[in-house]
Amino acid sequence: MKDSVIIYSGGMDSTVLLYEKKEEIGLAISFNYGSKHNDMEFKYAKINTENLGIKHIRIDMRDIFKNFKSSLLSGDIPEGHYEDESMKSTVVPFRNGIMLSIAAGIAESNGFKKVLIANHFGDHAIYPDCRHIFIGAMKDAVLFGTYSEIKIDAPYTLISKKDIAQKGKNIGVDFNLTYSCYKGTEDHCGKCGTCVERIEALS
Amino acid sequence: MKDSVIIYSGGMDSTVLLYEKKEEIGLAISFNYGSKHNDMEFKYAKINTENLGIKHIRIDMRDIFKNFKSSLLSGDIPEGHYEDESMKSTVVPFRNGIMLSIAAGIAESNGFKKVLIANHFGDHAIYPDCRHIFIGAMKDAVLFGTYSEIKIDAPYTLISKKDIAQKGKNIGVDFNLTYSCYKGTEDHCGKCGTCVERIEALS
Repeated sequence: MKDSVIIYSGGMDSTVLLYEKKEEIGLAISFNYGSKHNDMEFKYAKINTENLGIKHIRIDMRDIFKNFKSSLLSGDIPEGHYEDESMKSTVVPFRNGIMLSIAAGIAESNGFKKVLIANHFGDHAIYPDCRHIFIGAMKDAVLFGTYSEIKIDAPYTLISKKDIAQKGKNIGVDFNLTYSCYKGTEDHCGKCGTCVERIEALS
Repeated sequence: MKDSVIIYSGGMDSTVLLYEKKEEIGLAISFNYGSKHNDMEFKYAKINTENLGIKHIRIDMRDIFKNFKSSLLSGDIPEGHYEDESMKSTVVPFRNGIMLSIAAGIAESNGFKKVLIANHFGDHAIYPDCRHIFIGAMKDAVLFGTYSEIKIDAPYTLISKKDIAQKGKNIGVDFNLTYSCYKGTEDHCGKCGTCVERIEALS
């Protein structure tokens, strides 16, 4: 039954989740932050949702995020390891809370029962809104705050990016059709935090 | 200390909260749903924030809400009492969750510590995302999901609109400079749910 929506960037984590749960996904939602990296992600998100015949929409968040401070939005991306202190500048405050809330509203409006998100354990170090304790509270907020008691399913919360990569390989995901680089160049830069993390996970 | 942002529509409830907490509010955030009633509210929101010298921004949510179903957005507003079954069509699913999430992200991005919202007990009948149990879970989600542990303050959650009106009268709020009607006409229609509720509260 196609009763789920997925928050889908086109990166490797959410692409594995898209393929893993393809039977239950009726709608994939991408968010446009206005960054170059985001446009590149979207290109691959489109390819994968078309491959699977899943309806795909993109929501314009630029007017919201212009009030935020983050190097991910301004484009001044640091290089180094994902868990370095410098990577904190890439945080977009409460981004998962915002995306989950919007996806929950869209789910309720359109008769879906569940929202899927691919946050994982490796994100915990720098992103508070990827942690288990946040996901637990947000699950309650969405359950209590909707008529139809929308559920959040975040099945990768306690596993690593390497585990996700392995899952993807097992089900035949083509990682060449996913995009991660924060710099938004045509080829992955290989030096920004998310590139380093991707290389480690896929090796 | 001006350490709070407020979700501010320009309606009577959030205007009372704006005046009550004016000493601590550094930023008022209005959301644009693209409805006529919303433009009228904004006009009054602008007047009150200018009166108090509080910075006021408006965030464009039209690209988000085009994926939602609600008579409040489509403009086909039912008449009758606020607690009637028919009023459910005015619900914008998980709207408070969405506004609180965005306001929390803006608060964290700009060094504020708290988000104020003026949901009240009378809303509970038809809006699940106004209830105490939702606010409690959302408080945790925002606390756990932000670095600086942003707080949500929803001081009217357990009081009625009539109590809010009384508070406003006590501190000298001019209710002529607030707007409520869902129909978005220059004068209040007096027949839609929110007009009926307003009249009852102010009488």
